[in-house]
Amino acid sequence: MSDELANKMDNVQLDADGNPLSKSALKKLEKERAKAAKAAEVAARLAAEKAAREQAASVDFSKDSYGDLPLNRSTAREGPQYTPLDEISAAHDGETVTVRARVHNSRASGAKMCFLVLRGGIDTIQALAVANKTSVSPQMVKWVQGLNIESIVVVEGVVKKTPEPVYSCSVQDAELHVTKIHVESSAPTRCAFGVDDASRSEQEITASEEAAGEGEAKFIRVQLDTRLNNRVLDLRTPTNHAIFAISSGVRQLFREFLYSEKFMEISTPKLIGSASEGGANFFKMPYFGKEAFLAQSPQLYKQMLVSADFPRVFEVGPVFRAENSFTHRHMTEFTGLDLEMAFNHHYHEVLELIERLFLFILRGLQSRFKREVDIVKKQFPVPDFVLPREGEAVPRITFKEAVDLLVAHGIRESSKTMYDDDMGTEEERKLGPIMREKYGSDFYVIDKFPASVRPFYTMTDADNPQWANAYDFFLRGEEVLSGGQRIHDPKVLEERMRSLGVDPAGNGFESYIDAFRIGCPPHAGGGIGLERVVFLFLDLGNIRRASLFPRDPKRITP
Amino acid sequence: MSDELANKMDNVQLDADGNPLSKSALKKLEKERAKAAKAAEVAARLAAEKAAREQAASVDFSKDSYGDLPLNRSTAREGPQYTPLDEISAAHDGETVTVRARVHNSRASGAKMCFLVLRGGIDTIQALAVANKTSVSPQMVKWVQGLNIESIVVVEGVVKKTPEPVYSCSVQDAELHVTKIHVESSAPTRCAFGVDDASRSEQEITASEEAAGEGEAKFIRVQLDTRLNNRVLDLRTPTNHAIFAISSGVRQLFREFLYSEKFMEISTPKLIGSASEGGANFFKMPYFGKEAFLAQSPQLYKQMLVSADFPRVFEVGPVFRAENSFTHRHMTEFTGLDLEMAFNHHYHEVLELIERLFLFILRGLQSRFKREVDIVKKQFPVPDFVLPREGEAVPRITFKEAVDLLVAHGIRESSKTMYDDDMGTEEERKLGPIMREKYGSDFYVIDKFPASVRPFYTMTDADNPQWANAYDFFLRGEEVLSGGQRIHDPKVLEERMRSLGVDPAGNGFESYIDAFRIGCPPHAGGGIGLERVVFLFLDLGNIRRASLFPRDPKRITP
Repeated sequence: MSDELANKMDNVQLDADGNPLSKSALKKLEKERAKAAKAAEVAARLAAEKAAREQAASVDFSKDSYGDLPLNRSTAREGPQYTPLDEISAAHDGETVTVRARVHNSRASGAKMCFLVLRGGIDTIQALAVANKTSVSPQMVKWVQGLNIESIVVVEGVVKKTPEPVYSCSVQDAELHVTKIHVESSAPTRCAFGVDDASRSEQEITASEEAAGEGEAKFIRVQLDTRLNNRVLDLRTPTNHAIFAISSGVRQLFREFLYSEKFMEISTPKLIGSASEGGANFFKMPYFGKEAFLAQSPQLYKQMLVSADFPRVFEVGPVFRAENSFTHRHMTEFTGLDLEMAFNHHYHEVLELIERLFLFILRGLQSRFKREVDIVKKQFPVPDFVLPREGEAVPRITFKEAVDLLVAHGIRESSKTMYDDDMGTEEERKLGPIMREKYGSDFYVIDKFPASVRPFYTMTDADNPQWANAYDFFLRGEEVLSGGQRIHDPKVLEERMRSLGVDPAGNGFESYIDAFRIGCPPHAGGGIGLERVVFLFLDLGNIRRASLFPRDPKRITP
Repeated sequence: MSDELANKMDNVQLDADGNPLSKSALKKLEKERAKAAKAAEVAARLAAEKAAREQAASVDFSKDSYGDLPLNRSTAREGPQYTPLDEISAAHDGETVTVRARVHNSRASGAKMCFLVLRGGIDTIQALAVANKTSVSPQMVKWVQGLNIESIVVVEGVVKKTPEPVYSCSVQDAELHVTKIHVESSAPTRCAFGVDDASRSEQEITASEEAAGEGEAKFIRVQLDTRLNNRVLDLRTPTNHAIFAISSGVRQLFREFLYSEKFMEISTPKLIGSASEGGANFFKMPYFGKEAFLAQSPQLYKQMLVSADFPRVFEVGPVFRAENSFTHRHMTEFTGLDLEMAFNHHYHEVLELIERLFLFILRGLQSRFKREVDIVKKQFPVPDFVLPREGEAVPRITFKEAVDLLVAHGIRESSKTMYDDDMGTEEERKLGPIMREKYGSDFYVIDKFPASVRPFYTMTDADNPQWANAYDFFLRGEEVLSGGQRIHDPKVLEERMRSLGVDPAGNGFESYIDAFRIGCPPHAGGGIGLERVVFLFLDLGNIRRASLFPRDPKRITP
């Protein structure tokens, strides 16, 4: 139909049969037309309004307030100052801050809101992205809802006092209302496990398992092996941050005490020409056409340094043991805290210095690292470590007395040879509660071990060669230090070596024995296993939890 | 002849012919007899006196005041208090003290006197044993004269102000008059060399060689190899005591600064599943049916820990390099002082922190270890280490500017490719005096190295990929720290590895790259060679002098 014909038809009004309309019919028609026109007008207005709305929405007034940051290649020296999470509190209500943190978890609440927990080390804070008309667009909220957990974000927000404490976060009296948020480094859609899952105590997990009905959700148990296979992720838990702050603290306290006692720090070689302590548990490697061994301890070298007139030395360094065993307290590489000291008259001068050293370390952990200890306890809830009261002596018994205690408690059988055998792990562990009960301390010393169970360099007792001037230190019933007086006379040393089947002429012991031939003062010392101190002080159950990247016969990576 | 006949003959005096004697002859005879009797009497008296004298002498009234002590097996808790040598001075004139020290040297002066120099660490004092009638017997002096050098003695003596300074000892205004002296541990008649010979400067030795006529005595030059073969003896020199006190001090200052900057101490594994930085200079060994490598640095692990949200970490530990080379500054094992740090906006945040760290260490050595530095200078006399004045910036130039300086001084040839090659040892060393001349500092930084000479994990410059965000720190023209911004993005890292011919899929790099896949902040760091800092700060000429038991391809013992 042409426009012309249509106009014509429009001008001459006809009824359905093609006859011209009556006046009343015409009036009705006009009324209907007006109504339709009005409806069309409304529809057009609505459509226009909708289009305008949609257009306005698609513009995204927040588009500069979120997104991915370009890779930082150090192009700008200046930028926003990041506020540490633990500095945010209700006292800063209303202030705008910028933080850099991990997305710890995320929960959408409808289309216009998203709750985040942001994590920085051991600190967490709640953040909210809420759509509004001016600064936070719906697009921005949607993008926030899609953030991958563990991504690093830079967040600008306004601190708001919370009406009720946020119990799930370390910052409980304030939250962050997001105004800008950018990803600085993104994590994948799904990590091997959630850091929150990896942070739960065994008690929480068991409780959730017992409470959950068939098919209902319960907490995931992240096994130790899974953790160690994904150790970088695992290390991000607040618990692990606290454990390794404490581990750093043990070293710091160890040195602080020894510096104050005029000790000097040394580094002895780890590549050595012979197995340092004999035995079979050494690593061996080719070395420029010869052979080299990895030091099983700094023992021989720290003694040689005492002979070189360094009367008080200590070393913090790796110790290697090629022991093909899998226990809760052995690793093939661990951190040794070793010390050696010339004494004037009696090896108890050294033993007592080490007792004071341990009190300094353990008390220092309880005071300076209280927050970290409390964080670890959330995941590993154990009784406080009990120390002798200020001014009280460290409980110290002889090996003989220890065996008598074991016999009295039915742990070792009474017999003629009951003092001949060293204590095994189980006996040691059972002695712990007995000593705690008797002396009120989780830390104690056993002195005068049987000579037969100590290394060739140990000085035997002057009156009874059955016993040695040798001691072990214990935390919660497990050994953390072994030490004693050493033989500083070359002839006595050679005799002792021969009597134990160690050849003084072979095995590269020459330079060791030579050190005593040119005169050496009497001396004693000990070696502490750092990871043992940490895992026993905190009662973590397995030494691997106290090592950043533990090593055992099956694990050499990551 | 019977007794009876003889008596008869004696009663009747006869002459030579057998006739009885005349009266006068009898008188003469009697006179002669009286004379002989008198002579006999005198002789008897003299003999008796001599016997009495000899008996008195052989009694040895000092016999409890000298001799060998029994082996100390810790039978007594109490004993004399030993006074440190450096606490003895003219102020204590007349006081009796007991010291334990080495016999540094000994000089007899006639039969009744012996001069000793006693040594305790870096301290020496003169002692005299002089025979007297009551307390010091000639036997005792003779025994003192026979003491073997390097034996350890316990000496009781009276402090005496000296009329003139004893220039050969560190205690100059007082000496010790021996009242008792016992050997606690004896040295052999002859050691490999004298500790005094090993303490002389090259200048002293050369001067004595020039001054000595044919066949005349001159000082012995103890070669470095001889020293290292007898390292325990060599380490007894005051110079070595000072060097290793300074070495301990560098570690202490390093940690002190980093603790104050909220760094945490870590221990990363030395036994690793793959060669940590690629290349060929790694040690490899069997590991329970697999292979293990010794870490060439903590590089990959400290970066992984930054990704585990430990934003500031440091480690002090052994570093292993299987480099078959013999230079004055390389060893197969050394002590690495490593740090790694997440930064906010620019890697210069880290670079500047490390500059402040170095100023703290070097200024700390100059102030806290002044005495030790002065002792070392006696044997290694070099100009003081020059640092920027308080408040002045550490000189920092780009690699390009460094090359321009080398070209301007005719050390590197001007050419199109003059910026492409790394600096060799010789160029570095020649730049030292130029920088000192230009900036008045023996400590400076070169930034923006060519990307081609840096490891695969180095971030390149955003504007010009020819350059890297990487720096070296120098002391007296030799490198002591290498560091830079690292690539924290897994894709960029993999590309970079491929472009340098390193396979990201192989070589056990998976867990390293995985650490960046789960999000990692931008970070930078560096690794310091402890022994380099010590040997260059003190200008010892050879890094081995700054290592207790140095390791190179030929030396793995003692």
